[in-house]
Amino acid sequence: MSSWKDPEIAGVRALLASRQPAPGAPQPSIAERRAAMDAFGEMGSLPPGCLHEPTTLGGVKAERVAPTNAIEGRRILYLHGGAYVGGSPRSHRPLVARLAEAARSAAVSLDYRLAPEHPFPAAVDDAVEAYRDLLAQGVWPERTIIAGDSAGGGLTLATALKLKDEGLPQPAGLFVISPWADLTHSHATYKTKAGDDPMITRERLVEAAGQYHAATSPKNPLVSPVFGGFEGVAPMLIQVGSEETLLGDSLLLAERAGHARVEVRLEVWPEMIHVWHAFGGQLSAARRAIAAAGAWMDARLGG
Amino acid sequence: MSSWKDPEIAGVRALLASRQPAPGAPQPSIAERRAAMDAFGEMGSLPPGCLHEPTTLGGVKAERVAPTNAIEGRRILYLHGGAYVGGSPRSHRPLVARLAEAARSAAVSLDYRLAPEHPFPAAVDDAVEAYRDLLAQGVWPERTIIAGDSAGGGLTLATALKLKDEGLPQPAGLFVISPWADLTHSHATYKTKAGDDPMITRERLVEAAGQYHAATSPKNPLVSPVFGGFEGVAPMLIQVGSEETLLGDSLLLAERAGHARVEVRLEVWPEMIHVWHAFGGQLSAARRAIAAAGAWMDARLGG
Repeated sequence: MSSWKDPEIAGVRALLASRQPAPGAPQPSIAERRAAMDAFGEMGSLPPGCLHEPTTLGGVKAERVAPTNAIEGRRILYLHGGAYVGGSPRSHRPLVARLAEAARSAAVSLDYRLAPEHPFPAAVDDAVEAYRDLLAQGVWPERTIIAGDSAGGGLTLATALKLKDEGLPQPAGLFVISPWADLTHSHATYKTKAGDDPMITRERLVEAAGQYHAATSPKNPLVSPVFGGFEGVAPMLIQVGSEETLLGDSLLLAERAGHARVEVRLEVWPEMIHVWHAFGGQLSAARRAIAAAGAWMDARLGG
Repeated sequence: MSSWKDPEIAGVRALLASRQPAPGAPQPSIAERRAAMDAFGEMGSLPPGCLHEPTTLGGVKAERVAPTNAIEGRRILYLHGGAYVGGSPRSHRPLVARLAEAARSAAVSLDYRLAPEHPFPAAVDDAVEAYRDLLAQGVWPERTIIAGDSAGGGLTLATALKLKDEGLPQPAGLFVISPWADLTHSHATYKTKAGDDPMITRERLVEAAGQYHAATSPKNPLVSPVFGGFEGVAPMLIQVGSEETLLGDSLLLAERAGHARVEVRLEVWPEMIHVWHAFGGQLSAARRAIAAAGAWMDARLGG
């Protein structure tokens, strides 16, 4: 589509277009992509007074992010995106900090192991061990939210399914942004939105998916949570943009979880793109989405 | 499912079961069904001080419902349910009053023409004429919500599509409860939820659908809005219960509208049944759903 009602989204699209490699230029290596993602996050501003410090959780490296308004005892376990092959607490620090501030909670952003060096189930194992450690430290599940974007959104859902399998208590809620929840890429939006999505292509996802699931079937529910049994899983908020190839993953997820009697709120944000929340400096829709998600988390986290 | 987490829903299910005709007993006539629906509504309590009075809108009979906290200039145009063959402002008076109070707005509940006496497009024509009359009276579209439940939810969406066709301004929002939006009954939930839905059967819907669409194809988007083109239609809130045969209509609607860049919020309420909002005296989930919808409408209606 050539004209947008949102006056700010065209600027973000121009920024993204300017960062594409020239035609015929070599694709950046995994190391270069990871470095660029980290730089993107490290240059972003944090809310005034927000602290961040290294920590570990369940033997996994992590970063604690504490906004000044955090209410004692609350915790967000954040799982960053990056197609399971990139991203880190550094790349997602400003996003995590803004979400934590909006939810009035400290967050722990997990540096879970990445593919191809560490394929499935390393990431799920790390997330479950981190959650288990939070509980061991005395954090109440009723005062914990698991949240994530993109692959981290899929990982959030896989973690919730795995907690159920292991008989561990569910958190108070699951918040997922533009989740990548179907590594078989089955929904029609992989085609119908391909021309309007400036960030995500099926081709790149297929490549990363293969590196992540490796010898495991992509239909395994802990790889592709849309194939999971959601009965008894925590309430979930799903935020997705209308221009995403990944829109269909959110639709399938809402269908699957809602059918299984999970409390589901699905928000489709018109004209928005993959994890637009990361453009809080450019997009008022990013700030509004973060505020809405923060209110949802705040209400569930308790006093 | 035999056991429910919600401690109140079993009571509502028992009430509904007690009102089923005995096996082999003759089906009630249309007139009897309409009378029973009206009696259900007329016996319900209204918020203290809430006024209701007859009116007309666009030549269509209607009822004005004004809670004490209504903010001047706001209006909800309410379209009741009843499978296009029953229901009235009387049957839905308590529900409309509670929603209006939660939205801090007066409502006009439309007595649109019913099938089989008046098949499609009578109901759509009545709703459009009523909306046109509201605008002619000086009500701003930006301060108007169109809302409805079940068939009235489908009619809300058909009305929005027809307003677009006619070049009329969209309202500030569309709020639909358990909408019947696919009169071809295509989604899998017509089968997968049949055993858990205590109110709605595909068989009864097919009968009413035939009386309503008559000679018109049920694939006409003004009969079945899930087949419509939603580009440019107002933001929508969809609330649906997880136990509904009609769950799939809401899922298809969210998919269709979200894909078309409409602002969509879909809420699936676990264990809830068709238009559970009508059981506000029995179900705290009904009161919570009305409060959530009221807050959504309140935010969109403006000061």
